[in-house]
Amino acid sequence: MIHPIPPGTRDVLPDEMRELRALSARLRQLFEQAGYGEVRTPALEYEDVLRRGDDRAASAPFRLFDEHGRVLVLRSDMTIPIARLVAGRYRDAEPPLRFSYFQHAYRAPDRGRTSAEFLQGGAELIGSPGSEGEAEVLSLVAEGLTAIGLRRHMIGVGDGSLYRTLLSELEVPEEEREPLLGLLSERRFVDLEARIERLDLDPESRRVLVELPRIRGGPEVLDRGAGPAAAAVEGLRDLHAALEARGIADRVIFDLGLVRELDYYTGAVFEVYDPAVGFALGGGGRYDGLLARFGRDLPACGLALDLQAVHTAQAEEERLS
Amino acid sequence: MIHPIPPGTRDVLPDEMRELRALSARLRQLFEQAGYGEVRTPALEYEDVLRRGDDRAASAPFRLFDEHGRVLVLRSDMTIPIARLVAGRYRDAEPPLRFSYFQHAYRAPDRGRTSAEFLQGGAELIGSPGSEGEAEVLSLVAEGLTAIGLRRHMIGVGDGSLYRTLLSELEVPEEEREPLLGLLSERRFVDLEARIERLDLDPESRRVLVELPRIRGGPEVLDRGAGPAAAAVEGLRDLHAALEARGIADRVIFDLGLVRELDYYTGAVFEVYDPAVGFALGGGGRYDGLLARFGRDLPACGLALDLQAVHTAQAEEERLS
Repeated sequence: MIHPIPPGTRDVLPDEMRELRALSARLRQLFEQAGYGEVRTPALEYEDVLRRGDDRAASAPFRLFDEHGRVLVLRSDMTIPIARLVAGRYRDAEPPLRFSYFQHAYRAPDRGRTSAEFLQGGAELIGSPGSEGEAEVLSLVAEGLTAIGLRRHMIGVGDGSLYRTLLSELEVPEEEREPLLGLLSERRFVDLEARIERLDLDPESRRVLVELPRIRGGPEVLDRGAGPAAAAVEGLRDLHAALEARGIADRVIFDLGLVRELDYYTGAVFEVYDPAVGFALGGGGRYDGLLARFGRDLPACGLALDLQAVHTAQAEEERLS
Repeated sequence: MIHPIPPGTRDVLPDEMRELRALSARLRQLFEQAGYGEVRTPALEYEDVLRRGDDRAASAPFRLFDEHGRVLVLRSDMTIPIARLVAGRYRDAEPPLRFSYFQHAYRAPDRGRTSAEFLQGGAELIGSPGSEGEAEVLSLVAEGLTAIGLRRHMIGVGDGSLYRTLLSELEVPEEEREPLLGLLSERRFVDLEARIERLDLDPESRRVLVELPRIRGGPEVLDRGAGPAAAAVEGLRDLHAALEARGIADRVIFDLGLVRELDYYTGAVFEVYDPAVGFALGGGGRYDGLLARFGRDLPACGLALDLQAVHTAQAEEERLS
């Protein structure tokens, strides 16, 4: 007799649970010490509330009706619920505000993702603009990952608005932009290039659209001419300086093609890696417009780790050492 | 701008989270030390899998369809998922097996309950029959509650099959039994009595049906003649002896009218109280038939605490002391 569980979910047995709990407890302790108090929000949210944050977040796969016919969804991330919470419960609190969370989020399994239920551990810094805020979050995460044994971890840094700006400045037709961003967010460079080649653009614009998102490396890549994306690259140079001041600049790989799936990112975006495993351990970025949609206009940035992925990386690093 | 969250759910802010985490960590540590390793199961389960455990559990309020049209539900308790897990992942493991959990469960708010999302902390003991198993679970919970400061807590103990047996032995018509059990589980004694008075039964049977579920007190109440319920009361006398041997008999109030909502309880049932608050802090019981429904025929019992309720009681006890 086999009693199945839904695709993308799993049972966690005691040995693994003990390690996951230890991992979460260590990160929680570090986040708390840095002033990032933990919050918890409901697993279910009203769809129209999440939609205020991001259309894509609201089209979560797990949707149901309450007894009044309103649509509820299982939260697909924690950033939007925290924006809702801050605008409501911290309406008059003096920024900056710092929060952490250790909760599950729910998304549909797809080609790049086999899980439907994620244990996320993350931090959100609200009310601290620009590269100083970003550097604070990145150094917190770097400290956390080092503390749990991922001494070789790296952080990819790009700009979430860069390619969108490029598409607009180079006058790529509106209806082409989302498909191109979608391909880029899945890192399907071959398909991206093929689609760009079919656009009615001058060869130089096409070249920029194809080559710029492939630029990846140390701070020296930020010195190349970025044309219409110069402002975004300038922001990344600021961030590099702030990371250098905090002594973690060598953790970072600049990646001009880094695009996160959600629309609310307005500036720097992050993705976390470890050389022992072939998948991202988490990500985040700056979302300066999100809080205003809930009624409190504050800049913000944050990063969420997929703790199951972090745990796998931790085990691999131990095995290799 | 108010951004609502679903009825029965709430946001938890850092000060409260810190206390809830400390409370959970202390209980988890005690449970682990006693051999109750923590497991985690998915928030979503297939409805037909849960229905195998208990029809009422499957009629959970939060239901949705997956992409193949199968019904998923947000788990309404942890006992059935753990029965599923044990039958699958511990098919050949030597009993007894001990597990703990610290997860949310989801139920519809109703007259007796304002929450829809519960943080449950519990323990399940599988493969240990009779009063020895029950006494082990109760002393674990008593130790845990004492450790977190609820030194005055009490445990109500009844028998989940007692009233059902009585209804059957006294030949109450089938269609009357579920409504009467429903009234009893909500402790609506006046309505219960009115409904019993309308039954076509001899006066002595009616008297037993009305009076027996109101019997509540120390072990002396077990010495009264229980008529058709003698076997259940005999089981409770055994349990009292086992609790005495463990030095926690003075924690217990025997309550012959205690009935738990779910159908799978086959013997002793438990409910936890603290004099500082007017609501139950948790409950459980013996469910010897449940594991067999998933393919592994083992006796079992367990108890779940509502950690939010426990936290409220903890705060009240601190305030009073």
